[in-house]
Amino acid sequence: MVHREGLGIVETQFFTFGSSSDELVLENGEKIGPVTIAYETYGELNSAKSNAILILHALSGDAHAAGFHKGEKIPGWWDNMIGPGRAFDTEKYFVICSNILGGCKGSSGPSSINPKTGKPYGLTFPPITIGDMVNCQRRLIDYLGIKELLSIAGGSMGGMQVLEWLIRYPERIKSAIPIATTLKHSPQQIAFDEVGRQAIIVDPHWKSGDYYDGARPVKGLAIARMIGHITYMSDVSMAEKFGRQKKNGSNQTRFSPDFEVEGYLHYRGDNFVNRFDANSYLYITKAMDNFDAGQDRPFHEVLREKKLKALVIAFKSDWLYPAYQSKEIVKEFKLAGLQATYCEIDSTYGHDAFLLEVEEETHLISHFLKKSVLFI
Amino acid sequence: MVHREGLGIVETQFFTFGSSSDELVLENGEKIGPVTIAYETYGELNSAKSNAILILHALSGDAHAAGFHKGEKIPGWWDNMIGPGRAFDTEKYFVICSNILGGCKGSSGPSSINPKTGKPYGLTFPPITIGDMVNCQRRLIDYLGIKELLSIAGGSMGGMQVLEWLIRYPERIKSAIPIATTLKHSPQQIAFDEVGRQAIIVDPHWKSGDYYDGARPVKGLAIARMIGHITYMSDVSMAEKFGRQKKNGSNQTRFSPDFEVEGYLHYRGDNFVNRFDANSYLYITKAMDNFDAGQDRPFHEVLREKKLKALVIAFKSDWLYPAYQSKEIVKEFKLAGLQATYCEIDSTYGHDAFLLEVEEETHLISHFLKKSVLFI
Repeated sequence: MVHREGLGIVETQFFTFGSSSDELVLENGEKIGPVTIAYETYGELNSAKSNAILILHALSGDAHAAGFHKGEKIPGWWDNMIGPGRAFDTEKYFVICSNILGGCKGSSGPSSINPKTGKPYGLTFPPITIGDMVNCQRRLIDYLGIKELLSIAGGSMGGMQVLEWLIRYPERIKSAIPIATTLKHSPQQIAFDEVGRQAIIVDPHWKSGDYYDGARPVKGLAIARMIGHITYMSDVSMAEKFGRQKKNGSNQTRFSPDFEVEGYLHYRGDNFVNRFDANSYLYITKAMDNFDAGQDRPFHEVLREKKLKALVIAFKSDWLYPAYQSKEIVKEFKLAGLQATYCEIDSTYGHDAFLLEVEEETHLISHFLKKSVLFI
Repeated sequence: MVHREGLGIVETQFFTFGSSSDELVLENGEKIGPVTIAYETYGELNSAKSNAILILHALSGDAHAAGFHKGEKIPGWWDNMIGPGRAFDTEKYFVICSNILGGCKGSSGPSSINPKTGKPYGLTFPPITIGDMVNCQRRLIDYLGIKELLSIAGGSMGGMQVLEWLIRYPERIKSAIPIATTLKHSPQQIAFDEVGRQAIIVDPHWKSGDYYDGARPVKGLAIARMIGHITYMSDVSMAEKFGRQKKNGSNQTRFSPDFEVEGYLHYRGDNFVNRFDANSYLYITKAMDNFDAGQDRPFHEVLREKKLKALVIAFKSDWLYPAYQSKEIVKEFKLAGLQATYCEIDSTYGHDAFLLEVEEETHLISHFLKKSVLFI
């Protein structure tokens, strides 16, 4: 594979909609507006507006999927997959990624200022669903003048948004790539999320979500993230990365981290609190737990008679979103009579594999997209 | 199988040793004394003192392994395995179980009163190891006048104590039954423990372990226990027990538990804090993480030339102590030229299976013990 230069400097843009006459109606019936959605685009929209691909991010992701923000040394979260000559080839495709509703990276969420009060929403921000996130993305696509998406792709919660797009707007999609995701959270997935939420809620600085003018619940949020990181890795990848290696400078105080793996989790937890909002963590994990692609009627009934094809990707060592959940998605596609390719990548990285198995994913996705262009 | 009556009413006894002239020397060189060990015995020691079996408990267990305490409706933690006609048949065997050093159920631990200060030890309690726990058990066995144990058995951390007994006092053991355990914690096991410890440590009521005269760090301890419970069950057992069933009275306040599985974890967490000490949780999990049966020399070298046999039991759905870890134990026995039987029980209960798969375990253990009596 030829590794080309990436996208270089990119900028986040903002789309605001839903003024008083046109507020966003949420799935639970509540209204909210104005709503701002942060987004980035890479590549050029062709004159037929037929080469657009929407990328959907996971729990802690954002609109900055690729390229570099000015002055920053770390590129977007899926940079190795998006750019000239990469899986989502920006010489061919117009790639869009937006921060989800409820997030804390430029889109409206609990840490945003409520224009009606001039103060952060906190828990007055309404409960949101994966469907509400997708509705905001649909508004963005309308605003960009795009009628039909060549493809939609995302891993983990991004994959849930892919499935929700298929439920709500199948006529606007030619192909879909759900990665390491599920039709609905299992009780084990809900349980991990709930423990993370509890860690935040019992932090005395959480103060029922009303913490924006003082100390933030950083200790609780760090613990939530530490739990998350264990579930994103695999037993094998942890053993390969850390073994039972002792940490430098361990045993300094009683119950300080002794092992490398503990130091790593602390580092990840402490790092996360500088870039993420605890209330967003609560809102988004609840949206994930409540998501159920077959809640109203079986997913395959929703898909029946639709004209789209799918590439479903899972990873062998992913125990948070195990391969059997991806196989259930494939089964629904097949029951609906749709073309669905299933690929289980033999990775040891666990759930993180969707961000790390670049070569395998590039091979699968670039080939799939080429076929999608031809697909009528 | 004939199900007979259990043991009826039993009582905890206490053994105190290590007065000023004879303090317990810990693995790290520190001394502690006097030390009290809570223990229970079931059945009768025969005149040859050759029918004793030592049961070793897991993280949250205690000396009360079987029978009922007066006025209580819930029997000991392994009651379905210990009693007349049961796996550890008290009509044949003299069964002993003691609370570990560092515990909070009658044995000396951080919540005990330090006789030198008249106040609870808190973090002045010295760091302990699985070896220190075993040393206390050896003192208890001496005190009971038992030279040789017919068998030693335990699951999870109890299994680590079994392995440590084999390292320290192999000449005093005829047979060993390590269940759902490991030669050493993997980084994933350490990681889960560390997140539980952090949940306690960041609880403002923890106060560096000095909380015994005020509010206790119950919220942190409850979260540690919630994490534990997820790891004790399996994806399948959670799906069978809870599915995505909604909780009665959910949605009462924002971010209150919506699903049954969340309510269950809350119940388990809240329940645990009434019966367990947060500092004990820290000390014991550290002892587990630091345990390494092959740290000084390979385990099979320790075992070589020894005269004992082993039954190693694992459970297929146990992902906290996966079957591969039990197979590693078996391999060490075989390398040492010892008889070791390996049984992998096809259970969906996850790690909890060692407490729940009574029929399978009874079959395996009662047969193994019969052979152990004959074994010379």
